[in-house]
Amino acid sequence: LLSRRKNEAPNSPFPDDPTSRGSLWAGIKDDAEAALLEYVGTTMFLLLAYGGVQAAATEAGVSTTNSVVERSVTVALAFGISLLVTVWLFYRVTGGLFNPDVSLALLIAGVIGPVRFVFYCIAQLVGGITAAAIVYALTPGPLASNTFPGPGVNKAQAVFIEMFITSALVLAVLMLAVEKHNSTPFAPIGIGLTVFVCHLWAVIFSGCGMNTARSFGPAVVTGFPYDTQWIYWLGPFLGSLLGSAFYKAMRMYATSAYPC
Amino acid sequence: LLSRRKNEAPNSPFPDDPTSRGSLWAGIKDDAEAALLEYVGTTMFLLLAYGGVQAAATEAGVSTTNSVVERSVTVALAFGISLLVTVWLFYRVTGGLFNPDVSLALLIAGVIGPVRFVFYCIAQLVGGITAAAIVYALTPGPLASNTFPGPGVNKAQAVFIEMFITSALVLAVLMLAVEKHNSTPFAPIGIGLTVFVCHLWAVIFSGCGMNTARSFGPAVVTGFPYDTQWIYWLGPFLGSLLGSAFYKAMRMYATSAYPC
Amino acid sequence: LLSRRKNEAPNSPFPDDPTSRGSLWAGIKDDAEAALLEYVGTTMFLLLAYGGVQAAATEAGVSTTNSVVERSVTVALAFGISLLVTVWLFYRVTGGLFNPDVSLALLIAGVIGPVRFVFYCIAQLVGGITAAAIVYALTPGPLASNTFPGPGVNKAQAVFIEMFITSALVLAVLMLAVEKHNSTPFAPIGIGLTVFVCHLWAVIFSGCGMNTARSFGPAVVTGFPYDTQWIYWLGPFLGSLLGSAFYKAMRMYATSAYPC
Amino acid sequence: LLSRRKNEAPNSPFPDDPTSRGSLWAGIKDDAEAALLEYVGTTMFLLLAYGGVQAAATEAGVSTTNSVVERSVTVALAFGISLLVTVWLFYRVTGGLFNPDVSLALLIAGVIGPVRFVFYCIAQLVGGITAAAIVYALTPGPLASNTFPGPGVNKAQAVFIEMFITSALVLAVLMLAVEKHNSTPFAPIGIGLTVFVCHLWAVIFSGCGMNTARSFGPAVVTGFPYDTQWIYWLGPFLGSLLGSAFYKAMRMYATSAYPC
Ligand SMILES: [Ca+2]
Ligand SMILES: [Ca+2]
Ligand SMILES: [Ca+2]
Ligand SMILES: [Ca+2]
Repeated sequence: LLSRRKNEAPNSPFPDDPTSRGSLWAGIKDDAEAALLEYVGTTMFLLLAYGGVQAAATEAGVSTTNSVVERSVTVALAFGISLLVTVWLFYRVTGGLFNPDVSLALLIAGVIGPVRFVFYCIAQLVGGITAAAIVYALTPGPLASNTFPGPGVNKAQAVFIEMFITSALVLAVLMLAVEKHNSTPFAPIGIGLTVFVCHLWAVIFSGCGMNTARSFGPAVVTGFPYDTQWIYWLGPFLGSLLGSAFYKAMRMYATSAYPC
Repeated sequence: LLSRRKNEAPNSPFPDDPTSRGSLWAGIKDDAEAALLEYVGTTMFLLLAYGGVQAAATEAGVSTTNSVVERSVTVALAFGISLLVTVWLFYRVTGGLFNPDVSLALLIAGVIGPVRFVFYCIAQLVGGITAAAIVYALTPGPLASNTFPGPGVNKAQAVFIEMFITSALVLAVLMLAVEKHNSTPFAPIGIGLTVFVCHLWAVIFSGCGMNTARSFGPAVVTGFPYDTQWIYWLGPFLGSLLGSAFYKAMRMYATSAYPC
Repeated sequence: LLSRRKNEAPNSPFPDDPTSRGSLWAGIKDDAEAALLEYVGTTMFLLLAYGGVQAAATEAGVSTTNSVVERSVTVALAFGISLLVTVWLFYRVTGGLFNPDVSLALLIAGVIGPVRFVFYCIAQLVGGITAAAIVYALTPGPLASNTFPGPGVNKAQAVFIEMFITSALVLAVLMLAVEKHNSTPFAPIGIGLTVFVCHLWAVIFSGCGMNTARSFGPAVVTGFPYDTQWIYWLGPFLGSLLGSAFYKAMRMYATSAYPC
Repeated sequence: LLSRRKNEAPNSPFPDDPTSRGSLWAGIKDDAEAALLEYVGTTMFLLLAYGGVQAAATEAGVSTTNSVVERSVTVALAFGISLLVTVWLFYRVTGGLFNPDVSLALLIAGVIGPVRFVFYCIAQLVGGITAAAIVYALTPGPLASNTFPGPGVNKAQAVFIEMFITSALVLAVLMLAVEKHNSTPFAPIGIGLTVFVCHLWAVIFSGCGMNTARSFGPAVVTGFPYDTQWIYWLGPFLGSLLGSAFYKAMRMYATSAYPC
């Protein structure tokens, strides 16, 4: 179980091991270049995803036969499949995290260093704002992609839903992309489908952030119309810790007698 | 056809061959650790799946334009894609069975031993209860994930539907994950899509258990509101036997003159 | 382009080359055993697919909000994903054709011999009848899976639609499964998705047979209620010829100067 | 990052490097043969896709419960999955571009030469016309597959949406198919899903051309009923340039100090 093979260059998403550098700042030029590309990737991921949300909202305004079920499935497809393809594209370039909560998990796992972590978080948050602004500029009507708790869902429930779905995403990244095995090159498929199925559950209940950059971008562009933005910072943060802790626990079993 | 290559460690879901142990209890610490992780995996699988069912039911209560067809497809996506991703995550850790009826098939096939079978069944049943309790706690309204026969479907019909769909799942696990070939690392995709397509058929007719742990969890949390719980023990049990028997028959042909 | 590597045993769907036998009847025991397993596979494919069609029809009778679009998509998913998973399961056992028109294409391509072709066609047609009978027995209401031309579609149009979609399926089998390349072990995914997308077009117009066994089974069980059964024999037959002819043409380019 | 391995014959979609020829016209016979097959492939891709659009429009005319959301998702599935499977079929034969704007990107990237570029563009445009004519001939009612900006969307917005989604497609082709890595044989899956998710956004807003051949074919068959055809030439052209420029920029980082 869980042997991380280093230096597997051609297909490793993280061939540059920051922990082996002479100093924290030795790779800063690489970190900055990677963050720039991560910014483009996050923008592309969220542009296609917010675009799908905007389309579903516009279509629901056009006719009276659209249902809430089919809108949720469409939003789930927009986020899940957009992440699937954009992670696939950027996987061997920047890792394709597109999410500060995933960045945190990779910092905890020792895959990226603290400098790259900070650069990536900034790139991802600015990418979310950029994508929301582009969708707002290119489509009629108000921006439809803000996240907020659904009717009958209290704030604690929304935080815990966000925590659970983010931990699922973090675990998918750690088990499918960071761990090396035969299907590692196909991790983007598993990661994208994880986000898809989490949306099926959470869109109607918590709004389904599971990514602080995804919730922050539309909130900035629309002037923070909801006072529940903190939910999408706290819940995914806790989910990142939960996923990372479970991953560490599994690796401990692995280094002990458990033979898988 | 069907040559099982043992000791294919790095990507085998079942690298620990229980039949080669000195005694039945020699690997009990491994069995207990694996069962603990299988408990977490089953909880994660059913949390995301029950969550999707709960969302579809809540969305159907919000508007009058939701259709029964789209609700069934959404439930099918929630179970199929949740299983796809969670099996992928736990595949090389515990095997990712998440289902007592699949555990039975692997016991019959000699992939797991009787001690691990019992531990896994307990872990899976408790995982179902845990997942149902979490969804119940985190979402408004009554729990929506109980299974029961649909209108116009008698109990014998429901048992046979459950038998056929469970045998399809069992056969998918045996042919895609237990048998070793080029696409074995991708077995979770085939297994998840098998569960998806079985749901398209069975949700409206039998409720689509095809996994005793999946039907047992919500029944426990809601106090067994239906007197048809036995269907989801008998039908999948028969399906596990049917799938295992067909698999054995195919392997017999393989060891005789049939050259595939 | 298109170099067929023989004797690639462990993952080849057709390891037994009938053209290299001493006589036509030398492998008859193998042919009969393979046909028996092909019968089970065809039954499994069509059981899950007809089941999904039956569910969509039943769900449409339960409420007034179901739409024709979502029913067609559900039928497409039932046939496409059922074929995807069942071909995957039977790929290395019998080839997983499940379709007399695909059998014809493999006879023309020299992948199976005339004896196995006849055995397979019988197995596939009887498998279709078996699957239709099981769905009829296990679900309430009349069987919903007959194929017939939609409103406004004349018989010639239906024949040509059936021809085009069957040629797409035949070409997918020849290019993805018969041709050997890196993604050959994943041919079932491409074949299943081909059937899915053909259904999106053809369900409403021609009924979407694209497989004589698929159209014959429900017709037998329901006593041939439509006088257009011949369309689902002629159209797919022409499609099998068209796909095979295009494949032969491509291989001729390949053996001449064209370098791909 | 981004090392292009030449001469990787058996699975390379572009094994014939036109830049290494003695003269521009040396490979003209190969170019013509490839263009003929590319014509068939484009026709097959758009036949299945236009067919799905026609079906969704016909189904929407049959009942009043069809929703705009589910029609958009169906159209997205028709284009995305049709491209996925047809690219997979023609990948190792012609590259499976099926799109003049993708052809332009491959010309810029040096993967195809100017003669093949011109031949491919002609083949793709004629393929679009052929597919539109076949769907028109085989189905009742007017052809439904024209692209035009949706209500409330101005022409500049439509151009920019077309530019962004085409750049996503172009980048998918360059990063998944032209770049060589473990998942290159599966590039058709990523390319098809990119087109799927772009449709989720763009169908309602810009009509979702993202391929001049796809927009040109139905316009020719229906006599150019909209005066916005130029949008589907300009937008995708700009998208092809944008995607190619970003790809070049990434490769520059790659040849400098950036280690991924
Ligand atoms: Ca706007
Ligand atoms: Ca509750
Ligand atoms: Ca609907
Ligand atoms: Ca017409």
